[in-house]
Amino acid sequence: MAKVKVGVAGYGVIGQRLADGVALQGDMELVGIADLAPTLSIRALKEKGMPYDLYLVNDSNRAKFDELNIPVSGTFMDLLDKVDIMLDSSPGGVGVKNKELYLQKGVKAIFQGGEKNSVADVFFHGYANYEKGLNVDYLKLTSCNTTGLIRSVDCLDRDYGIEKVAITIIRRVADPGDYHRGLTNALQMDKAPSHQALDLMTIMPHVEATGILVHTPVTHGHIITVVAKGKVKITKEMALKSFLHHDRIRVVTIDEGFQGNASFFRYARDLGNPRGDMYEIGLWEDCIVESGDEIMYAINIPQESVTIPETMDAIRAAMGLQQTREEGTAATNKYLGIGKWK
Amino acid sequence: MAKVKVGVAGYGVIGQRLADGVALQGDMELVGIADLAPTLSIRALKEKGMPYDLYLVNDSNRAKFDELNIPVSGTFMDLLDKVDIMLDSSPGGVGVKNKELYLQKGVKAIFQGGEKNSVADVFFHGYANYEKGLNVDYLKLTSCNTTGLIRSVDCLDRDYGIEKVAITIIRRVADPGDYHRGLTNALQMDKAPSHQALDLMTIMPHVEATGILVHTPVTHGHIITVVAKGKVKITKEMALKSFLHHDRIRVVTIDEGFQGNASFFRYARDLGNPRGDMYEIGLWEDCIVESGDEIMYAINIPQESVTIPETMDAIRAAMGLQQTREEGTAATNKYLGIGKWK
Amino acid sequence: MAKVKVGVAGYGVIGQRLADGVALQGDMELVGIADLAPTLSIRALKEKGMPYDLYLVNDSNRAKFDELNIPVSGTFMDLLDKVDIMLDSSPGGVGVKNKELYLQKGVKAIFQGGEKNSVADVFFHGYANYEKGLNVDYLKLTSCNTTGLIRSVDCLDRDYGIEKVAITIIRRVADPGDYHRGLTNALQMDKAPSHQALDLMTIMPHVEATGILVHTPVTHGHIITVVAKGKVKITKEMALKSFLHHDRIRVVTIDEGFQGNASFFRYARDLGNPRGDMYEIGLWEDCIVESGDEIMYAINIPQESVTIPETMDAIRAAMGLQQTREEGTAATNKYLGIGKWK
Amino acid sequence: MAKVKVGVAGYGVIGQRLADGVALQGDMELVGIADLAPTLSIRALKEKGMPYDLYLVNDSNRAKFDELNIPVSGTFMDLLDKVDIMLDSSPGGVGVKNKELYLQKGVKAIFQGGEKNSVADVFFHGYANYEKGLNVDYLKLTSCNTTGLIRSVDCLDRDYGIEKVAITIIRRVADPGDYHRGLTNALQMDKAPSHQALDLMTIMPHVEATGILVHTPVTHGHIITVVAKGKVKITKEMALKSFLHHDRIRVVTIDEGFQGNASFFRYARDLGNPRGDMYEIGLWEDCIVESGDEIMYAINIPQESVTIPETMDAIRAAMGLQQTREEGTAATNKYLGIGKWK
Repeated sequence: MAKVKVGVAGYGVIGQRLADGVALQGDMELVGIADLAPTLSIRALKEKGMPYDLYLVNDSNRAKFDELNIPVSGTFMDLLDKVDIMLDSSPGGVGVKNKELYLQKGVKAIFQGGEKNSVADVFFHGYANYEKGLNVDYLKLTSCNTTGLIRSVDCLDRDYGIEKVAITIIRRVADPGDYHRGLTNALQMDKAPSHQALDLMTIMPHVEATGILVHTPVTHGHIITVVAKGKVKITKEMALKSFLHHDRIRVVTIDEGFQGNASFFRYARDLGNPRGDMYEIGLWEDCIVESGDEIMYAINIPQESVTIPETMDAIRAAMGLQQTREEGTAATNKYLGIGKWK
Repeated sequence: MAKVKVGVAGYGVIGQRLADGVALQGDMELVGIADLAPTLSIRALKEKGMPYDLYLVNDSNRAKFDELNIPVSGTFMDLLDKVDIMLDSSPGGVGVKNKELYLQKGVKAIFQGGEKNSVADVFFHGYANYEKGLNVDYLKLTSCNTTGLIRSVDCLDRDYGIEKVAITIIRRVADPGDYHRGLTNALQMDKAPSHQALDLMTIMPHVEATGILVHTPVTHGHIITVVAKGKVKITKEMALKSFLHHDRIRVVTIDEGFQGNASFFRYARDLGNPRGDMYEIGLWEDCIVESGDEIMYAINIPQESVTIPETMDAIRAAMGLQQTREEGTAATNKYLGIGKWK
Repeated sequence: MAKVKVGVAGYGVIGQRLADGVALQGDMELVGIADLAPTLSIRALKEKGMPYDLYLVNDSNRAKFDELNIPVSGTFMDLLDKVDIMLDSSPGGVGVKNKELYLQKGVKAIFQGGEKNSVADVFFHGYANYEKGLNVDYLKLTSCNTTGLIRSVDCLDRDYGIEKVAITIIRRVADPGDYHRGLTNALQMDKAPSHQALDLMTIMPHVEATGILVHTPVTHGHIITVVAKGKVKITKEMALKSFLHHDRIRVVTIDEGFQGNASFFRYARDLGNPRGDMYEIGLWEDCIVESGDEIMYAINIPQESVTIPETMDAIRAAMGLQQTREEGTAATNKYLGIGKWK
Repeated sequence: MAKVKVGVAGYGVIGQRLADGVALQGDMELVGIADLAPTLSIRALKEKGMPYDLYLVNDSNRAKFDELNIPVSGTFMDLLDKVDIMLDSSPGGVGVKNKELYLQKGVKAIFQGGEKNSVADVFFHGYANYEKGLNVDYLKLTSCNTTGLIRSVDCLDRDYGIEKVAITIIRRVADPGDYHRGLTNALQMDKAPSHQALDLMTIMPHVEATGILVHTPVTHGHIITVVAKGKVKITKEMALKSFLHHDRIRVVTIDEGFQGNASFFRYARDLGNPRGDMYEIGLWEDCIVESGDEIMYAINIPQESVTIPETMDAIRAAMGLQQTREEGTAATNKYLGIGKWK
């Protein structure tokens, strides 16, 4: 069977990781990536010897690339001619414009969380609604927080049924290397309910969700606390058993050294993972507590890389590579090496 | 009626504010403060012209004070001879040793949250259990987070009855001017349940409480989210009505400019409050949401000053100045100017 | 002699402190302050009982103020009719537009550092070029960093002559309460030379200056290191003697507790200074070192309040209240209470 | 010729990188690493499949490792029996105790900057005094700041002669993943002169050096500004030419995207460097300025990895692998891939 030909639009924080993720899938081929300026990430690509072909979104910038001896393989339209499906990680609002080109060229596309839901036919999560994405042309991924959150809620939901969640999102405010956004010595509130709670309800309409989001001045990993009500009373042991079973959840303890969000980053660096990335969300065994008939727990969201597996799932669904969530997510996990540490 | 004679042990972050608070109470007299080294706070006291008399905990340090021309009014024991009650804000663990001297001299004492509960006869909160402290010799105040949290939970409890709370504490990790503790670009977990939830249950034994605490690298105001279950369903309107009624809760909105914890500090500075202190907890109207049959909200805890009013309440209870929580807290509020902004 | 009538345009971080500063000057009268929206600072003014009269820059916002029961005393033009001189602390770029109104109304004005130099006739510093501002209509103050830096360089220059300085500015990136700018876990470079070095040369044209500026994620006090070359070799003792003599320089040591920039803020809060402000720059005695024939030292710049004294000096010069820098700065210092701690 | 057999004591932030560095040297063999507890780094080593053999410093902890199924290859003494030379990156103060074992076993050793100079025969820097380390048994490396600083000063010194430097160290206060040390919203001073200036004079005794160090709340890369006086006047062009020539200095500009210390970390991650490490110091072309007859510039020190190349140089010197600094550093650079990006 021919490999699925994939392109990536926007080679930023997410785009780079999408490209790396596709390159690891045995049944996909990364045709190339598209960007418009010689950013640090593009300069790094060049210093690495151009492992991925570069296509130019705006050909008028061509001279800048030539001046820096950065090889260009063609235009954005050239890239679209060669692919089956595009992963669009352009800045928010650009994806909807790109979609016109995708329609024109007849290529499918997966949009990231920054776009409006209306850009796509289905708002997608690999574990929660894989089958809804089957053979659909345009999918939109949940954002990083929502992706990780749904992993944990869907995990409990499938085992015990979940009726309601109340979440507190302790959000990292910038990525390492960001200067254009930041926060200094302040915790900043968003009006409640947070969009992540609303997004969860779009994906899992049988769950009632609300939440409060607080921005914090750190660059590694969001932390979310979840208060969840099951159809049955979920004990700590029941929750733990479910979480330990999930391939994309890494259960840890404070005692073994996972003191906070920065520990996951440190651990992923020590593992030798490229960029210190981690695909799994973290979950602290010693922070699971029962609250009456509800269960409360805390998860860590590695914001830069957490959506990569679910995006691979989305390609599988949209292209019909696997017909079920079990097969789709298992294929992704195998190629990304997820769960082999268990 | 003679004024109650009060002394303060430990002139640090809390001790300074206790002294200022006592000095404002029309029915109390601040006899003096005790400390052991010429810290920045003591140097500032001297630069201000010694508005409060200073007593030395350790007379062997006397020469250092003489060298700096800082007037000393006597020893710690001299201070104990002159007071009816001591506010003990010494470093954690010192209070229990001081208690032996208090017993010896027959003076009452109020201990701060850093001491173990066993140091006192009653674990005290001005609004939640004032009457338990009446005429008791040794009281211990709740910590800053617990004090502010209980204000809000007790407020709803008295109006509607509260059965259960699940809290997420987003804790500031240091005070402005601290160098000995700190956190840099990390969110740090504590094992759950947090002690604040346990402390709440000690003060309000009819409420089931649990919670997760996350340390964040900021110096202003903790933020706590609360998911509370009432005996009846508490709507947003019902909760808001109760909160607006409470003298020590300041209801604000993001739209009017209270974007986060640092806004309260900025506002208190602009008000001209000494040190930029605020006695009230903040509560965001636009972050109150309903979660099924539960109510969820977020509060801001000004950690340096929030326990001052409840400590004044404690003096009133211990000395029998007022016989009911309504009278006791009203007297404190009047002298501290709390609620006059309404 | 009639008091000089002063107005303040823009009641933000700087404007509030300018208003407070003017209110303290025995020979000046604060007529009122002007702003355009009910910011937190205006709300705090109202909660304090309107100690200063408020004039509206944009009358179309009148309804918002009425709705909040904030008394308005008139329009910006009404204010201009009543004053001799305006202190313009509007956002950068607004001052130059306001100047047209000042010209029209025949009022003098002092602009803050955010405006371009061309807005004013003289770029002013109270200690370095007071006489240049005498009876001049439009003055522009140096920025916070430059104001503090020049205090120290002018201090050495008058005693020993300074030929050259190389500065490193370790800049705080936001003020307490700021959310619109910030930096998280990064040090950010500006292209060299920094504007502060260029500004110093404009004020002190006989000194050669250059420098590098690094933004840091903190909200209290810039720190500047200075490597200065004197006309004669300046020893540590010589430098210290000069610094100790200057009323607006506070010489401290790490040993007594001034461990960094946050210590000055803590100390000013403990002093009971409104908002925790400090007019003096800090200078560490134990960080003065000799570098061959040059002298190296470090100063702390309390960015919110450091320019207030020099702005008072500017009013004195522009209005001809005092004819010399010695008399002008002495009058300011007396009214602000500067130097009385010595 | 037989490969040099190397062991590493202490598998923490530095030890891990030393082990990786040795593993890349074609003429060395990493025999194993030694540590005493199942830290996150050891757990990551296990999850990677034990690419390096682990020896136990304290055999009494053996049970903990067995419980976690972490293979142990022997004791610390077993490791010493198999190596020619040890790289000691134990916590400060432990190295001097280990030295007794090294002497007993007759193995050479390189100590990191945390130990006292007296632990070693020579205080070493690969570029500045390689020949002093030739065939010496015990060397001590300069600390991370001093290592990077000396690269740049030695670079100018060899081309033009340097007489004097005055440095300002803007120090990161913790590494990513640290919770035990940290600083929140404060800049903290050290007494001057900083030890880095004194250390530079020990290595380069013909240079007069002094400096001021300021701790800042960030985890990536120290930044140092240097004001250097040459034997001849060094222009910006002369300095730039020298820096561009140095293999371990990476000259960048703000315009191309290197906005600060976090950009280097971002770039190294994008390059795919393990852990996001960078061996080169960064130097901003657009921050080089002339200050009279002196030259001023700013460098970035990647604190976790900067000493690795000079430690490899130290092995080469101590073992007599290469007889000159040119050959020694060139061999290290070749194996680490340094300079190939030029």
